[in-house]
Amino acid sequence: MPPRRFALGRTEDAVHPDAMRAVLSEFIATALFVFAAEGSVLSLGKLYKDASTPGGLVVVAIAHALALAVAVSVAYNVSGGHVNPAVTLGSLVGGRISLIRALFYWAAQLLGAVVAALLLRLATGGMRPVGFVVASGVSDWHAVLLEMVMTFGLVYTVYATAIDPKRGNLGTIAPLAIGFILGANILAGGPFDGAAMNPARAFGPALIGWRWKSHWVYWVGPFLGSALAGLAYEFLLIPAEPPRTHQPLTPEDY
Amino acid sequence: MPPRRFALGRTEDAVHPDAMRAVLSEFIATALFVFAAEGSVLSLGKLYKDASTPGGLVVVAIAHALALAVAVSVAYNVSGGHVNPAVTLGSLVGGRISLIRALFYWAAQLLGAVVAALLLRLATGGMRPVGFVVASGVSDWHAVLLEMVMTFGLVYTVYATAIDPKRGNLGTIAPLAIGFILGANILAGGPFDGAAMNPARAFGPALIGWRWKSHWVYWVGPFLGSALAGLAYEFLLIPAEPPRTHQPLTPEDY
Amino acid sequence: MPPRRFALGRTEDAVHPDAMRAVLSEFIATALFVFAAEGSVLSLGKLYKDASTPGGLVVVAIAHALALAVAVSVAYNVSGGHVNPAVTLGSLVGGRISLIRALFYWAAQLLGAVVAALLLRLATGGMRPVGFVVASGVSDWHAVLLEMVMTFGLVYTVYATAIDPKRGNLGTIAPLAIGFILGANILAGGPFDGAAMNPARAFGPALIGWRWKSHWVYWVGPFLGSALAGLAYEFLLIPAEPPRTHQPLTPEDY
Amino acid sequence: MPPRRFALGRTEDAVHPDAMRAVLSEFIATALFVFAAEGSVLSLGKLYKDASTPGGLVVVAIAHALALAVAVSVAYNVSGGHVNPAVTLGSLVGGRISLIRALFYWAAQLLGAVVAALLLRLATGGMRPVGFVVASGVSDWHAVLLEMVMTFGLVYTVYATAIDPKRGNLGTIAPLAIGFILGANILAGGPFDGAAMNPARAFGPALIGWRWKSHWVYWVGPFLGSALAGLAYEFLLIPAEPPRTHQPLTPEDY
Repeated sequence: MPPRRFALGRTEDAVHPDAMRAVLSEFIATALFVFAAEGSVLSLGKLYKDASTPGGLVVVAIAHALALAVAVSVAYNVSGGHVNPAVTLGSLVGGRISLIRALFYWAAQLLGAVVAALLLRLATGGMRPVGFVVASGVSDWHAVLLEMVMTFGLVYTVYATAIDPKRGNLGTIAPLAIGFILGANILAGGPFDGAAMNPARAFGPALIGWRWKSHWVYWVGPFLGSALAGLAYEFLLIPAEPPRTHQPLTPEDY
Repeated sequence: MPPRRFALGRTEDAVHPDAMRAVLSEFIATALFVFAAEGSVLSLGKLYKDASTPGGLVVVAIAHALALAVAVSVAYNVSGGHVNPAVTLGSLVGGRISLIRALFYWAAQLLGAVVAALLLRLATGGMRPVGFVVASGVSDWHAVLLEMVMTFGLVYTVYATAIDPKRGNLGTIAPLAIGFILGANILAGGPFDGAAMNPARAFGPALIGWRWKSHWVYWVGPFLGSALAGLAYEFLLIPAEPPRTHQPLTPEDY
Repeated sequence: MPPRRFALGRTEDAVHPDAMRAVLSEFIATALFVFAAEGSVLSLGKLYKDASTPGGLVVVAIAHALALAVAVSVAYNVSGGHVNPAVTLGSLVGGRISLIRALFYWAAQLLGAVVAALLLRLATGGMRPVGFVVASGVSDWHAVLLEMVMTFGLVYTVYATAIDPKRGNLGTIAPLAIGFILGANILAGGPFDGAAMNPARAFGPALIGWRWKSHWVYWVGPFLGSALAGLAYEFLLIPAEPPRTHQPLTPEDY
Repeated sequence: MPPRRFALGRTEDAVHPDAMRAVLSEFIATALFVFAAEGSVLSLGKLYKDASTPGGLVVVAIAHALALAVAVSVAYNVSGGHVNPAVTLGSLVGGRISLIRALFYWAAQLLGAVVAALLLRLATGGMRPVGFVVASGVSDWHAVLLEMVMTFGLVYTVYATAIDPKRGNLGTIAPLAIGFILGANILAGGPFDGAAMNPARAFGPALIGWRWKSHWVYWVGPFLGSALAGLAYEFLLIPAEPPRTHQPLTPEDY
C-alpha cells in the first residue's frame, strides 16, 4: 500500500530495483516527449519562415498531444507516467508519492529534457532550441495565470483518469486523455505564451538554447496549478470513507 | 438502481456527498472544456487576422474534440460526464437521471462555462470572448435545424457508448467517441453556425463577451435534438425486456 | 451462434426485435456518418473558394475518420457497426451474416445516406451536395483500382479488429482503427478520386445533388475490394480448427 | 512459451500454420501501411506544387500515424504487429522471437512495401513514388543520428506497450501509442530527413521509384536505434526475477 497522505519516504523508496527502474523510465519517457515536442517547433523553423499560422499551431499541438500520450503510456506501469515535474508535485501534495521519490523523479525529468534538447541540437546540425516565449502584448503575470489554469486542467486529468481508485476501465485511455488535454490547451494558449504546463519541457530547451527570458513563468504557473489540482482532487473528489464496492460508478448508477 | 423512467428525485439526490461530488465534477469538467474550446477561437484571433481558412477550422475542431474527450473522461465516473445541458436533458427525458439532479447539473455546467470564459478574458489580458455566430447567408432557423441534427448525433453517441446497458467494452472508449462526434460535426457545421451542440458552451462566452445575437438558436436547437435522441435511443434501441445475458453482443453473435 | 459460412437466412433474421433494432441502428449510424462526412466537404465550399489545399484535405480526412469511428461505435453492439454496404458484402461473403440480413442492412445504409444528404441540403439553405469526383488526369479504371485497394484495407481492418474471434482486447479499439484507416486512405487517395470506400457514402450525395458522373466507380471498386478482403481474411487468416484457448495470442506467445 | 533470450528457432517456427498466418499478416499489414503512408506523399504532389508547408507536414504525419496504428492493430494478434524490420530486429535482440521467424518477417515486410508502392504507381496512373530524401543543409550522418534517436523511441514504445509482460490494460491501446509516436516524430523530424524509422517503408518506394540517394541512411539509423531500444528495455526495464503478481502496477502502488 502506498502512503495515502504526505510522507518523507524511506531510502529504499529510491534504491530498490523497482524504484531505479521507475526513475530510468521517467528519464527516457521525458526525453522521448521533449524530443518530439521541441522537435516540432524546430521543424516549423526549418520548413517555413513564418510559423505563426493556424497550420503551424496544429503541427505543434498535435506533436505535443501524441508525444505526451506515448510518453505517459511507456512509463505508466513502471513509474506512473508523470514525465512532468508539475504532475509529480501534484502527486506529492496529494500524498500519492513520497518526497524522496519526487526528488528523484524531478532530477530524471529535467535530465531527460536536457538530453533530448541536446540530441535535437546535434541531429539538426546545430539548430538552437526555441523553448517558450511570452507573446508580445501578454504580460508575464498573465502568462503565469494562463499556465496555472492550464496545468490545473492537466493535473486534474491525471488524477481523474490515472490515479483515482474509482477510475476503472477509464485507466485504459488515461494516457490518451492526458495527451489530449495538453494538445487542446496548446491550441488555446499556444499563441499567448507557448503553453508549456511542464517545467522540464521548458527547462531542457532553455538550457541548451540558452534562452532564459521569462523562464520563471514556466515554473511558477505550472507548480501553482498542479498543487491546486492535487489538493482539490484528492480532498474534494475522492471519498474519504472506504469505497463500498470495487465496481466503478457508471452513468446508469444514478 | 437508478430510476429507469422519469422521476422527480428525492432531496438526497442533491445533498448526499456523492451527489455533491458529481455536481462539483460537472462544474470543473465543463470549465476545463470551455476554457480550451473558446480559447482556441481566441487563439486564432491572436495568431491570424483571417480565421476563416481550413487551417483555422482544423484548430477549432481539434481543440473541441480533444477537450470534450478529456472533460467527459474526468467526470465520467463521478457524474456521468455530461458537461453539456443538452446531454443532461437527453438523460432526463430518457429517465436516466432525476429532475432535481438535472437542475443541479445545469447550474454547475453554466457556472463552469462562465468561470472558464472569465478566466480566459483575464489570462489573455482582456480579449473579448467570441462565442457563436450564425454565418451570413444562413438564417436562424436553418441554424436551429443544423444544431438540432448535430446535437441529435452527439446525444445518440452518448447514449450508445456511455449509457446503453449493453455497451460492454465500448464504454472504455466512450469519452473518445463523444469528443470525436463533436469534432466531426464542427468540421461539417462550423462555417455555417459555429456548431455549438451545447448551450453552456454558448452561454459562458456570450455572457462574458456580452454578445447575444441569435443566442436563442444555441438553446432551442440543441435541446430539441437531445430530447429527440434521448427518447429515440431509450425507447427504440434499448430492449424493454431484461437482457438475456450480461455479455455484450458482438459482431459474431448473429 | 451465427452461421459460420454463407447462408440465406431465415425470415426471423429480419423481423425479430433484435434484428429490427439492428436495421434501425445501421440507418441512424450511416446518417450520422454521412452528415458529418459530406458536411465537411460543403463546409470547405462555404469557407473557402479553393478547397484543393493540404488544409482542405486535412479537414475532409479528419471529419471522415472521426465520424466513422463514432458511427461504428454507436452501432457496434447493436448491428455490428457496418454503416457501409461494402463492409456488409465482406461479412456476407465471409459467411458472417445471412443474405436476408445483408439486404436489410443495404437498404438501411442507403436510406440513411440519402436522409443525411437531404438534411444537409436543408440545413445549409440549399447547398448542393458534392459527393465524389474522379480527378482530371485519373481514368475511371484507375479509380476503380484505387477504390478496390483502399476498400480491401478498410474491410480487412474490420475483420481483424471487430470480427476475428481471436481479436481479444483489440475489439475495444476496433471503431477507432476502422475510422483511422478511412482517414489515412483519404489522405492518400483523396486528391485522386475522393476516396469513398463506401457506396452509400457516394450514393446519398449523388442522389440529392444529382451528380452521377463516374458514379459506378464507387460501387464496383469498393465491392471488389471488400469481397476480396472478406474471403482472404475468413479463409486465410482465421484458423479452421477450433482455437485451443480463449486467451488472445499476444506478442509474447511466440 | 517463447524463447526468452536469443534463439535460432526451429524450422517449425516458419512452417506451422500459425507461423504462415503470421508471415501473411505481416505482408498484408505492411502493404496497408505503406500504401497510405507513401500515398499521402503522392497525394500532396497531386494537390499542390509546394508540399513544404505546415499543412503538408500535417497531412503526411497524420497519414502515417493513423495507418501505422491500423497496421499494428490488424496484425497484433496474429504476428505481433511489427510491420517494420526495425521492430523485428528489436524483438530479435531482446530474445522475443527466433532468428528464423525474423528472417521470414523481414522478407514479408519488404515484399509488402514493394507491392504497396507498385499498386500506388498503377492506381495513380504512373506517379513515381518519392520515398525519403535528406533535406539540404542536413548531412547523411546527421540523418543517421536522427533516425537512430527516433527509432529508439518507436521501438521503446513497442516494448513498453505491446511486449512488456507487465503492460496490463495498456496493451489495449498499444497500436494507438505505436502509431502516435511515429506521427509525433514525423512532425519533429520530417523536414530534416523525412523521418522513416522503418527500412521497409523506405525500401518499397525506393525500388519502385528507383531513387537510392542516401538510402543506406534509412537502414543504418533505424537498425542502430531499434537494437539499442530492444537491449535497453529487455535488460534494464523488465525485472529478471519472476513477477510477484499478475496485476499490472498502477500509479497507486507506490
